[in-house]
Amino acid sequence: MTSEKLNEVLRNIEPLDPELMKTTRARIDGLIKPLGSLGELEDLAVRLSAITGQMRFRFDKRATIVMAADHGITEEGVSAAPRDITWIQTLNMTKGITGVCAFAKEARSDLYIVDIGVDRDLAGAPIHHKKVRRGTANFTKEAAMTREEARRALVVGIEMAEEAIGKGAQLVAIGEMGIGNTTPATAVIAALTGAAVCEITGLGANLPAEKRAHKIAVIEKGLALHHRTQADPLHILSCVGGLDIAGMAGVILGAAAKRVPVIIDGVIAAASALIAAGLSEYATAYMIASHASAEPAAGVALEHLGLKAPIDLGLRLGEGTGAVMMMPLVDMASAMMAHMITFEEAGFSLE
Amino acid sequence: MTSEKLNEVLRNIEPLDPELMKTTRARIDGLIKPLGSLGELEDLAVRLSAITGQMRFRFDKRATIVMAADHGITEEGVSAAPRDITWIQTLNMTKGITGVCAFAKEARSDLYIVDIGVDRDLAGAPIHHKKVRRGTANFTKEAAMTREEARRALVVGIEMAEEAIGKGAQLVAIGEMGIGNTTPATAVIAALTGAAVCEITGLGANLPAEKRAHKIAVIEKGLALHHRTQADPLHILSCVGGLDIAGMAGVILGAAAKRVPVIIDGVIAAASALIAAGLSEYATAYMIASHASAEPAAGVALEHLGLKAPIDLGLRLGEGTGAVMMMPLVDMASAMMAHMITFEEAGFSLE
Repeated sequence: MTSEKLNEVLRNIEPLDPELMKTTRARIDGLIKPLGSLGELEDLAVRLSAITGQMRFRFDKRATIVMAADHGITEEGVSAAPRDITWIQTLNMTKGITGVCAFAKEARSDLYIVDIGVDRDLAGAPIHHKKVRRGTANFTKEAAMTREEARRALVVGIEMAEEAIGKGAQLVAIGEMGIGNTTPATAVIAALTGAAVCEITGLGANLPAEKRAHKIAVIEKGLALHHRTQADPLHILSCVGGLDIAGMAGVILGAAAKRVPVIIDGVIAAASALIAAGLSEYATAYMIASHASAEPAAGVALEHLGLKAPIDLGLRLGEGTGAVMMMPLVDMASAMMAHMITFEEAGFSLE
Repeated sequence: MTSEKLNEVLRNIEPLDPELMKTTRARIDGLIKPLGSLGELEDLAVRLSAITGQMRFRFDKRATIVMAADHGITEEGVSAAPRDITWIQTLNMTKGITGVCAFAKEARSDLYIVDIGVDRDLAGAPIHHKKVRRGTANFTKEAAMTREEARRALVVGIEMAEEAIGKGAQLVAIGEMGIGNTTPATAVIAALTGAAVCEITGLGANLPAEKRAHKIAVIEKGLALHHRTQADPLHILSCVGGLDIAGMAGVILGAAAKRVPVIIDGVIAAASALIAAGLSEYATAYMIASHASAEPAAGVALEHLGLKAPIDLGLRLGEGTGAVMMMPLVDMASAMMAHMITFEEAGFSLE
């Protein structure tokens, strides 16, 4: 069942129509401005028109989907904050008082908070209850989760994307809450890009600098145990990944299959993006990069995907905060297509 | 009269209150997120609270002030587009069809279009008529304008800021329209930062690459004629600047004197920012950088001012387009202060 759902979604992710992109590019080239002078906003508009099938797109209804999960790797002392913060902050999100709540309100985005693997009984909380298991295992000792659990977590993400889109969402952002999750994210990114762990490991949420070497050793131990040369993304995801990472990868796939653009957040979401791109060669076309995370692995992952983050504010909060901040810039691409006219329509030229 | 007005405004620009900044910083440090994890958005919020005198600031009413002017230096063949585009595009702005119109609409900003020096009679057009002179002179032969004209153009900017703020604007963005204006902007930036002209000269609005050496030679000729070692910003402005550059510098000063933050656009606005900072040592505290322009001189100017642009989309359109795109990110700083609560208020800690 799980495999069938996943395979069906992967089959439904299609490449963008090059003809549509050409038509939009031609219109943008004709707008009353110096050729190419809106830079990467123009490239984004070309993709958004091909994703939506519309020359003039608008994303009035937006959804931010936040995946909350715990990580067995916290046993190894790789995070500054205690593990309990995962469930505490997940509940805080339901009260509208955390970072992503503040920014989602400003960006007029609905918020979907999903328990995909928090190590605590959250029954009764006003969140989406989709727990696959209570946290992953410590990946320096065994696989973080089984292959089937990884698949189920992907399907949770797909289902959440389908639910949000079913309720009208035209633009989706992904985020997460999971103490310790920069460690599995960095492991996934190292495994899938070939980058050296020591070069891409950051301090996450204020890990003391002197513990960075330990964090690197933990990631390298995990990758060695599980054969990092393995190119199968589902293998990497289940061995050294996380339920939040899997869930967000599922959201990307589910949105892409429905031709809805997805905004990627920081380093954890970037790991999910690599997983999604590994499962579907066309998925990247539906991704929108948002911010240049302070975590070095994020930049490596985005570059590997051929994406570039337009916002650089040194953010490293997570929760989807950077992805939500990108929504108003996506709106600027919509505004360009909606309100600017061409030289021809204006009756003059730059020559 | 002009001198008196200018001096009065310069006297009214005050340094930010360090106590207020400390109080805001303390609250931000206590918000439920890892310490410092909202990066430069936190620094921006600290400044905005000190500028407005409010811990919770909001900028619902915004103004984008666009200064339109011609440049005598176009005689030297430094721009790809014909000079007539200045007045044509200035009139197009009144029709809501250009880049800044599209983005200002999306960002809910009023638009003030100012003829501060267009070389054409625009009487009757629905714009602000503040022409100081019909374009500057060719600065390779004589000063672009007189010292008194530069002062008058600064005062035009001040008056426009005062008008917009008088109508309720709480946040101001600056922009310009002026064929050829990357040349005076680069000259001003070279003179005020000491940067080498050959290292900071870009291609503006699609100047053919083979003409870059000529553009550099033109700027160097102008700087040599007018003694680039001169440290007086009013001298630099009048000799190699532009009426649009002067007008935007005036807007910055006028807004700063009224304790209203001003968003800087690309390379032309960055030249204005340097002039404003040269005239008032406290002006920089009121400036918000927006985008990393494709023009190399812009980055040099911002760095000189100690500012960093959060948006990198390779924009090089002008008109204030990049500044307007920053407005929703400023709103994110407002949202952080409005909606996030502290660990203390939430009743838990990260320890």
